[in-house]
Amino acid sequence: MNGAEILVQTVIQAGIEVCFANAGTTEIFVVNALEKIPGIRPMLFLFEGGCSGAADGYARMKDKPAMTLLHLGPGFANAVANFHNARRAGSPIFNVIGDHATWHRPSDPLLNMDLEGLVGTVSSWQRTNQSTDRISLDAAEGISAALPGRIASLILPSDHAWTQPSSAEICAARFSFEPAEKETIENAAHLLRTASRKALFLGGRTLRKEGLLVAARIAAATGCDLLTDVFPARMERGAGYPFIKKVPYFPESATALLSGYDAFVFAGAREPVSFFGYQDMPSLLLTPDQRRVHIGNGLQDEAEALGGLADALAAPSDPLLDSPLIASYRRPPLPGGALTAEKVCQSLAALQPENAVIVDESLTSGFAYYDLAAGVAPFTLLTLTGGAIGQGIPSATGAAIACPERPVINLQADGSALYTLQALWTQARENLNVTTLICSNRSYNIIRVEMSRAGFSPIGPVAAPLMDLGHPDIDWVKLSQGFGVPSIRAYTVEEFAAAFSRAMAEPGPHLIELVLT
Amino acid sequence: MNGAEILVQTVIQAGIEVCFANAGTTEIFVVNALEKIPGIRPMLFLFEGGCSGAADGYARMKDKPAMTLLHLGPGFANAVANFHNARRAGSPIFNVIGDHATWHRPSDPLLNMDLEGLVGTVSSWQRTNQSTDRISLDAAEGISAALPGRIASLILPSDHAWTQPSSAEICAARFSFEPAEKETIENAAHLLRTASRKALFLGGRTLRKEGLLVAARIAAATGCDLLTDVFPARMERGAGYPFIKKVPYFPESATALLSGYDAFVFAGAREPVSFFGYQDMPSLLLTPDQRRVHIGNGLQDEAEALGGLADALAAPSDPLLDSPLIASYRRPPLPGGALTAEKVCQSLAALQPENAVIVDESLTSGFAYYDLAAGVAPFTLLTLTGGAIGQGIPSATGAAIACPERPVINLQADGSALYTLQALWTQARENLNVTTLICSNRSYNIIRVEMSRAGFSPIGPVAAPLMDLGHPDIDWVKLSQGFGVPSIRAYTVEEFAAAFSRAMAEPGPHLIELVLT
Repeated sequence: MNGAEILVQTVIQAGIEVCFANAGTTEIFVVNALEKIPGIRPMLFLFEGGCSGAADGYARMKDKPAMTLLHLGPGFANAVANFHNARRAGSPIFNVIGDHATWHRPSDPLLNMDLEGLVGTVSSWQRTNQSTDRISLDAAEGISAALPGRIASLILPSDHAWTQPSSAEICAARFSFEPAEKETIENAAHLLRTASRKALFLGGRTLRKEGLLVAARIAAATGCDLLTDVFPARMERGAGYPFIKKVPYFPESATALLSGYDAFVFAGAREPVSFFGYQDMPSLLLTPDQRRVHIGNGLQDEAEALGGLADALAAPSDPLLDSPLIASYRRPPLPGGALTAEKVCQSLAALQPENAVIVDESLTSGFAYYDLAAGVAPFTLLTLTGGAIGQGIPSATGAAIACPERPVINLQADGSALYTLQALWTQARENLNVTTLICSNRSYNIIRVEMSRAGFSPIGPVAAPLMDLGHPDIDWVKLSQGFGVPSIRAYTVEEFAAAFSRAMAEPGPHLIELVLT
Repeated sequence: MNGAEILVQTVIQAGIEVCFANAGTTEIFVVNALEKIPGIRPMLFLFEGGCSGAADGYARMKDKPAMTLLHLGPGFANAVANFHNARRAGSPIFNVIGDHATWHRPSDPLLNMDLEGLVGTVSSWQRTNQSTDRISLDAAEGISAALPGRIASLILPSDHAWTQPSSAEICAARFSFEPAEKETIENAAHLLRTASRKALFLGGRTLRKEGLLVAARIAAATGCDLLTDVFPARMERGAGYPFIKKVPYFPESATALLSGYDAFVFAGAREPVSFFGYQDMPSLLLTPDQRRVHIGNGLQDEAEALGGLADALAAPSDPLLDSPLIASYRRPPLPGGALTAEKVCQSLAALQPENAVIVDESLTSGFAYYDLAAGVAPFTLLTLTGGAIGQGIPSATGAAIACPERPVINLQADGSALYTLQALWTQARENLNVTTLICSNRSYNIIRVEMSRAGFSPIGPVAAPLMDLGHPDIDWVKLSQGFGVPSIRAYTVEEFAAAFSRAMAEPGPHLIELVLT
């Protein structure tokens, strides 16, 4: 029994089952402990951004901590961008980062860097383990800190991992949500009863099944609208769920929607902020005169708090299936002809199977999808919560590991996909049911849009290559096959539909490059 | 004229010619300024680790600052691992990182993170610009700080970039090396004159042409051996240069070599430290009783200081071409048959053209190459200075941009290549003369070696997949073609030689997957 084995036993006892890993020499004692003590399945990613993105996707679907195992500062650095997304998503993640032996680090070996500083940029909880005897406590406290939906990072020096502890005692991770404050619930109820133009703004756990149905009851009781932010972490959608308006991306459209309300109740959601700051545009999208109440801080279960609000409002508890608030089954027709961004969205809504998990990192190509998919068979939507591109492929991989029985469909922008395409290989190795739909517009189109908004159009010959992903064109069919994922290219809706149907029928991963005109 | 244009003018005036970029919305004013003011060629990388690695390779070859343009915290985070390597290499790099508008950041928009904290993990100089009127000064001071071989990072809020300055004055970057202390040179001369078993340990600029020839003169005058660390940043090698012993990777072999000396003069080099800490092994590879003198601190030109040392020793100034210290032309014969790691090294030494730049991130596959290439036609060697894998492909790309007239050959481990393979696309777009040799052993072999050293062998069924890059095999020919780089697979030395000969004859990038047995 050494420190690494104590760590693995603690983690198993906390209910963790998989570990998204890219280990190096400083982690070999943990790797060996994973071998010796059955209970955790480590899974290799070829780049650490795959580990962090997969942990995020897994945590969103499982609602329990995802574990990663990473190698020193550079390994953690490669994972930071997707940890940023995970942090914004409120995903519970427990990281173990191997570090140099404590007596070795002062010599500043070549791989040494400011690991604590780096870890602090994305972690809500972090600790550098100080002795083998504290490993179990540190791991249990780290996992407990992650449970409400945060990133917890434990730095484990390799000498502590290889040393024998003085006791084999294993500490337990513990967390329970705090109860919501009664007064806040009453304030929210009062606001929804008394305001005339009012919205219930949903986030976090309120966008799961129970929360959404409670929100529909509140809407039925009070006449409020239901809103959510532009990038929800995880949201149940489709027929049988209430339709939730999403705040638009650009501040002009967002304020046009939001200025229609004089009161908001936020449940597990932040107040909306413009994605970027623009000249002569607001940063905060609400004005001070718009009244607001927040329920569900990070340590409360906001879905439970929402239930309390429904009770306080004496909202009807009947099933609302026939209410106009609830989306009835409505699937758009399959279009035809050459693929455009809009036709990709409509085709996906027309074709997606019941119970799919849609991982949407489609950016400008997917603008139409949200509304088109409002009434399709029930599905789960995951989006790019932190804006750090390269989230889609890894996150879809993690979602498929969490839900092996569900079809995972990744609606994916090409430029963003290129950040972390290595995770396709893990999909192939683990034979995961993920279908990646590459929206190949061969550009960072959002930057073209922003250049045009700033008045920089036409875009000149020096700037244009910075937004152009052609010259040469990326061949996604070859890239995908290079990682072992069967792939095909589609130019028309008909080709897309045929390829999609085969992908859904065959087990394992597939990739379809959708060439947009 | 706005702040972004002031920035670009300052940078042009400082002599910067290219910018390794992946810009987003917060950088569009800088992008537009690059369009309006001719003088800097921006170059797109599909992932920021490509920008930082290319900047490192470019700076090592050009000995002048490389510029990057990066997008917010996540963009910088993706670049950190290769900045870590660049920091260890002593590469001068000037980063401009666009940030949210100053009045927008307090709203904590989704892409916001602890950018200052992140930048601080790898930068020797950093500043967040406080007003448009200070942009030129900040940029000039940043470039000046980078010049001695450091990473300087300027965070530029987008509102400062789009605002008009009150003056169009452009500040100049300035740097000159400090003179070496005379007393230190005398101490070093005394040590080399009086010690019996002595070594001159070379690093930094002493491994360029002039430094090496001066080192040979010192060796001729004093009988000292010439050593360098396991991962030199840039080193001229081959016939006509003195042979420099490299400290071995593992501490057992390193101390076996180093214990043979009782005195060291370090010139631009750190004292050797074990790459990792192992149980019952030393961290520092020298013992306190071994005498040492250091010449060339970070602000002195260590090559010039070495010249001073040669003068102090009255070292012969004659050409040393016939001295046994200098490698005479000696090219190993081309082997034959199925490729092994050793045969790849011998084949490359046998085939590489004169004046090649060899970017070596071959790890375990390349252990034999250094000695085999000692007497080939003169070439430049760049290695993995910081141990953060994923350096080879980007760094070769940057070296080729710096030296378009030279053949760049990237001897590349497969696992490391997978970290930053997207830079292949930039090689294709820019039609760079880079030939990538993928040493495809389908494993993280160094971790297998380390597991075995730790006694964890045979490696069990849970741990093995964490080191195995097969299942499925990576198809490098398809990955390369997917990014637009012509590619071929070789199983034998004969196939390698034929493919290599074609790659050298044809302009533009090539990739050869060398399947090792």
